Amino acid sequence: MERIDGRRPDQLRPVEIIPGINRFAEGSCLIRCGNTHVLCTASVEDRTPPHVPEGEGWVTAEYSMLPRANRERSKRDIAKLKLSPRSAEIQRLIGRALRAVVDRKALGERSITVDCDVLQGDGGTRTASVTGGFVALALACRKLMEEGVLEQMPLRGYVAAVSAGIVGDTPLLDLCYEEDSSAQVDLNCVMDGSGRLIEIQGTGEGRPFTIEEQRALVDLCGKGIQELQKLQADIVGVL
Amino acid sequence: MERIDGRRPDQLRPVEIIPGINRFAEGSCLIRCGNTHVLCTASVEDRTPPHVPEGEGWVTAEYSMLPRANRERSKRDIAKLKLSPRSAEIQRLIGRALRAVVDRKALGERSITVDCDVLQGDGGTRTASVTGGFVALALACRKLMEEGVLEQMPLRGYVAAVSAGIVGDTPLLDLCYEEDSSAQVDLNCVMDGSGRLIEIQGTGEGRPFTIEEQRALVDLCGKGIQELQKLQADIVGVL
Amino acid sequence: MERIDGRRPDQLRPVEIIPGINRFAEGSCLIRCGNTHVLCTASVEDRTPPHVPEGEGWVTAEYSMLPRANRERSKRDIAKLKLSPRSAEIQRLIGRALRAVVDRKALGERSITVDCDVLQGDGGTRTASVTGGFVALALACRKLMEEGVLEQMPLRGYVAAVSAGIVGDTPLLDLCYEEDSSAQVDLNCVMDGSGRLIEIQGTGEGRPFTIEEQRALVDLCGKGIQELQKLQADIVGVL
Amino acid sequence: MERIDGRRPDQLRPVEIIPGINRFAEGSCLIRCGNTHVLCTASVEDRTPPHVPEGEGWVTAEYSMLPRANRERSKRDIAKLKLSPRSAEIQRLIGRALRAVVDRKALGERSITVDCDVLQGDGGTRTASVTGGFVALALACRKLMEEGVLEQMPLRGYVAAVSAGIVGDTPLLDLCYEEDSSAQVDLNCVMDGSGRLIEIQGTGEGRPFTIEEQRALVDLCGKGIQELQKLQADIVGVL
Amino acid sequence: MERIDGRRPDQLRPVEIIPGINRFAEGSCLIRCGNTHVLCTASVEDRTPPHVPEGEGWVTAEYSMLPRANRERSKRDIAKLKLSPRSAEIQRLIGRALRAVVDRKALGERSITVDCDVLQGDGGTRTASVTGGFVALALACRKLMEEGVLEQMPLRGYVAAVSAGIVGDTPLLDLCYEEDSSAQVDLNCVMDGSGRLIEIQGTGEGRPFTIEEQRALVDLCGKGIQELQKLQADIVGVL
Amino acid sequence: MERIDGRRPDQLRPVEIIPGINRFAEGSCLIRCGNTHVLCTASVEDRTPPHVPEGEGWVTAEYSMLPRANRERSKRDIAKLKLSPRSAEIQRLIGRALRAVVDRKALGERSITVDCDVLQGDGGTRTASVTGGFVALALACRKLMEEGVLEQMPLRGYVAAVSAGIVGDTPLLDLCYEEDSSAQVDLNCVMDGSGRLIEIQGTGEGRPFTIEEQRALVDLCGKGIQELQKLQADIVGVL
Repeated sequence: MERIDGRRPDQLRPVEIIPGINRFAEGSCLIRCGNTHVLCTASVEDRTPPHVPEGEGWVTAEYSMLPRANRERSKRDIAKLKLSPRSAEIQRLIGRALRAVVDRKALGERSITVDCDVLQGDGGTRTASVTGGFVALALACRKLMEEGVLEQMPLRGYVAAVSAGIVGDTPLLDLCYEEDSSAQVDLNCVMDGSGRLIEIQGTGEGRPFTIEEQRALVDLCGKGIQELQKLQADIVGVL
Repeated sequence: MERIDGRRPDQLRPVEIIPGINRFAEGSCLIRCGNTHVLCTASVEDRTPPHVPEGEGWVTAEYSMLPRANRERSKRDIAKLKLSPRSAEIQRLIGRALRAVVDRKALGERSITVDCDVLQGDGGTRTASVTGGFVALALACRKLMEEGVLEQMPLRGYVAAVSAGIVGDTPLLDLCYEEDSSAQVDLNCVMDGSGRLIEIQGTGEGRPFTIEEQRALVDLCGKGIQELQKLQADIVGVL
Repeated sequence: MERIDGRRPDQLRPVEIIPGINRFAEGSCLIRCGNTHVLCTASVEDRTPPHVPEGEGWVTAEYSMLPRANRERSKRDIAKLKLSPRSAEIQRLIGRALRAVVDRKALGERSITVDCDVLQGDGGTRTASVTGGFVALALACRKLMEEGVLEQMPLRGYVAAVSAGIVGDTPLLDLCYEEDSSAQVDLNCVMDGSGRLIEIQGTGEGRPFTIEEQRALVDLCGKGIQELQKLQADIVGVL
Repeated sequence: MERIDGRRPDQLRPVEIIPGINRFAEGSCLIRCGNTHVLCTASVEDRTPPHVPEGEGWVTAEYSMLPRANRERSKRDIAKLKLSPRSAEIQRLIGRALRAVVDRKALGERSITVDCDVLQGDGGTRTASVTGGFVALALACRKLMEEGVLEQMPLRGYVAAVSAGIVGDTPLLDLCYEEDSSAQVDLNCVMDGSGRLIEIQGTGEGRPFTIEEQRALVDLCGKGIQELQKLQADIVGVL
Repeated sequence: MERIDGRRPDQLRPVEIIPGINRFAEGSCLIRCGNTHVLCTASVEDRTPPHVPEGEGWVTAEYSMLPRANRERSKRDIAKLKLSPRSAEIQRLIGRALRAVVDRKALGERSITVDCDVLQGDGGTRTASVTGGFVALALACRKLMEEGVLEQMPLRGYVAAVSAGIVGDTPLLDLCYEEDSSAQVDLNCVMDGSGRLIEIQGTGEGRPFTIEEQRALVDLCGKGIQELQKLQADIVGVL
Repeated sequence: MERIDGRRPDQLRPVEIIPGINRFAEGSCLIRCGNTHVLCTASVEDRTPPHVPEGEGWVTAEYSMLPRANRERSKRDIAKLKLSPRSAEIQRLIGRALRAVVDRKALGERSITVDCDVLQGDGGTRTASVTGGFVALALACRKLMEEGVLEQMPLRGYVAAVSAGIVGDTPLLDLCYEEDSSAQVDLNCVMDGSGRLIEIQGTGEGRPFTIEEQRALVDLCGKGIQELQKLQADIVGVL
């Protein structure tokens, strides 16, 4: 099967991560995965939410799409007076994924909010947000170390994410919007630097899928995530 | 490792599904998985939301916890003027899971809303909601057939769900709240009547997990779901 | 006039109060008045709202109907982003009724929230909520005494409530939904253990009513409330 | 017992109703009951809400207090993003009271919204709103008749309301704020032009009350309402 | 060009300011500019919002229209769950205008909220709110001085506002609603007691306007504001 | 007085307008005025809001800041459940400014929403939004003409905006954030292609200002706007 943009089944879209895109945020980047563009900023504050134990820090994420990120304009959340349930679900995923590598004690009593704002969306916005959000977070931590606020890096390793799916019964890596629209199965993986899973989410949108298919998709994701983590390492360096 | 309630690692909690618990709903049941109790009702309406193509039907779900379903009382959503993000995420999952077996054309231009209200929660409320929600949905469909509104069953098969997790490095089926609180990994599966996956969601809450661990958890879920579907069949009959 | 369910004009529907229905709440019951089923829980918290004087406690109530409690499914409050005005009115009534017998100083600096969630509604949900809510409250107070948190019972007596109405110019006790729908007058009474009024609310929905009719309805309520308080006493004991 | 403002127990505060206070509303008045001042407007619209049967009209009410109507400034509802539960309860009462004398078929397919905005509140704002709201409503109906829109008056009679209460064990008519603050019992009556009850609401705020006390309060209200209806008649004329 | 109400181009509508209209507010007035009637109250509280530096006070304003202030009834903000954007804009203007003459240190750590509620609107409600709001604010400050709470007047001078506009290419002072509806240009000025600008807002609603036209409108406003400040001085006295 | 970035008093910051930044929007640009970066998209829809007369079109604007556009992170509007009043005010200004040059009949029964999302803010975001928003709008109109949807350009001319202010008693063009923070007076102008005013908004934030000062600021704005319109013309061409 020929992919719509001529990629091999196990090939990522061209990825670019531009660090330091925002001059005010402690850490930031613009991540472009094909035509999906997400602006990620990490903001440090010297307080933590009430549920965080004394002596520990907190990392959370917010996700939103600009109204015209997509083919059709969507109303803003505030016009509907409710956070889009899809955004609610995605920002919970991003937060969990990033916290999986955070040493909360090493971070100390501060919180970092990673904002992922989708400027343009062409599939895979949640996984691009995890991958770019990690870079913004790591750059913010680096800054805290350079300023002497932190003594050690509060991150235990890398985190990146990618999607894979089954289109026309063929497993494909990193679906773009058009592929995603006709996918039978859609599966996202978040992995650490050793290829272990931090999060897996798979849905049989067009049909149920076998355990073997599920495994093939995870393997594809593993391959893509390795490549993404090389790009992260070029910017963030060794942790 | 001894489980807190003496179960074997691959053993479900006692499950009970009481059909017809609500005299007004077209389909309903109370599902009890151990101390997790969820009231599920399926409500039929003769109209569909705007995004549904002409000639087709729609199935959606809503999920909520009563304020004192848990050890601590929580505020109602309306007191905070926002749907709990956790509820938003869960009701999207339930809706996707149920729609996976719905023949929308056979359902015709009507919608069925499956409400899952947790009366008491002790872990596994989202998977109990899928399993009980399916029963309520199937009973409502049966009723539509008995009334001559539908000629054929608009469900293509069974759907049930269960969780598994890793506690103290041991994979366990169907975590109760106390196990869930200390789980390193938590994974939910929704499967159809042939043991194929409809949805998989796994999170490394305490630590990342290997692909082998992920597979072991899916296998545990598969075993539990088979047992749950036998209970469903006793009530719903052959589809 | 024959009543729809064959009751005498001054006869209550069959009433059942099942205590301890929720394993987490400090006090709880399920009250069934005919086909009206309300789950009542009492939750104790060690703080009081700002308007409560130092050294005193507070009791408040929340009331809600599950979406399919009625013949037609209703939208949840959160979907409309506003508390149903009817619920707002009813929960203020329940709170006032319960506080009428609370010794706030004896309760000490804690608050008890009584949640009344209607699982199924067939008329008289607000009065069933008062009657069942009192049982949940009293059981929570008993528990605080048994745990040694309180030295004396902070309740000065019983509270129960019932409705009466005029249907076809005949005064009837404890209207079910169908009677209520065609009632000319609807009146609710909350009374203490001595048959004194704590609250009276009457509305001429179909026509104005005379002072004599109003008195007859209060007398009917008084009779019903005496019976309800016997049921309460069986569970709660002497105060 | 001497009343704070020297009134007899069965004496109303000085009442003044100024019709036509708003040049745009189809009907309007400013009602002053002592220091309680409520601006009432009746607005006619040529459409009815969805629940109203074809061929019939609708009358509804909204109630609100200006932020500095009281001794302390209150936040506006919109600042808290919720309608005050007290306002919700009161505007439901006003609407029911007015609808009790409306001939919905004679009104035809139009709706009248009666807005009661409390400019200054010193007790009895809900009953003043009913009494003043009726005048605004009646003036609007008169205008529709004068304009030839309606052929007959769609009101079947007068409606007025007043409160009574027990202070220091003495029943008093028309409590002002200071009396209301220390009242043991507070009771409101809405009555028609023949002294029949349309609505009764009584609360034992400080203590339960006997059926005899309840009757005495209703009698006091009946006396006050007769006087109020004379004032209404001076403005509105014979219906 | 003949004006609709026969005024000269540079003539204000009849203006009346009635002080002390609300018995509870620390300062209040009813301002009537033609058929535009605004009730202004100033409420003092002994605390300041978080952004105010220690040792300083704060003055803010809220603006709202009663639902039937206009020719057509509008829904209340709370019914739409959002502050009208127009009200948001206007109350920010009123607040800025009043703060321009407040000596925040002299005011001390207290805040004054000026509520401007439009009882009837016929054009120029925002400028009437500034003019009347200043009177309410000044009266509240006077009261604080009389009570010995403040030693010196925390106001540095007068503030008043008026609109001017271009209708049929003719500059006119103080547009009423009908003039405003057909105005090509609408411009509001807020000025201090020396005729200096505190705020200017002009919009070419029907067409762009030249800098010369803009100057002519400001001159008209200056003339009107001088007259308004004489009325203010009669009530407020020398500052 | 030396400006913080060495500019002359009448010198704009470096301005860059990058058209076509979003591949989905009918028109779009990224405008950079110094460190202020605003993403502007124009979205066409084939329907108009209810208040628009038949046969005419509508242009509206929405304005928002990303949470970390500023030195401090701000909460999103949806987290506070209310549109920021500042955003409400600004988007009304942008909408009015753009509509001033729209021929609504030539646009036909369609609406164009111009979204201005501030990626980074360093003063002058509202005027940059007008200037960039116009480019997005004009590009969308060009596209409608190229596609044959429109026969003539529905824009009557250019619109651009800039701010000027008084800092240390010196009038300066195009204030950056630091200048704005210490400005005594802040004034924004929107002008058409002939240098006529479409909108003027000036505030004496630190002190009142004379009519002469107001004129000097308008003159500065006029000079800056001429330069901005040259940049617009390079992209949009002759209208």
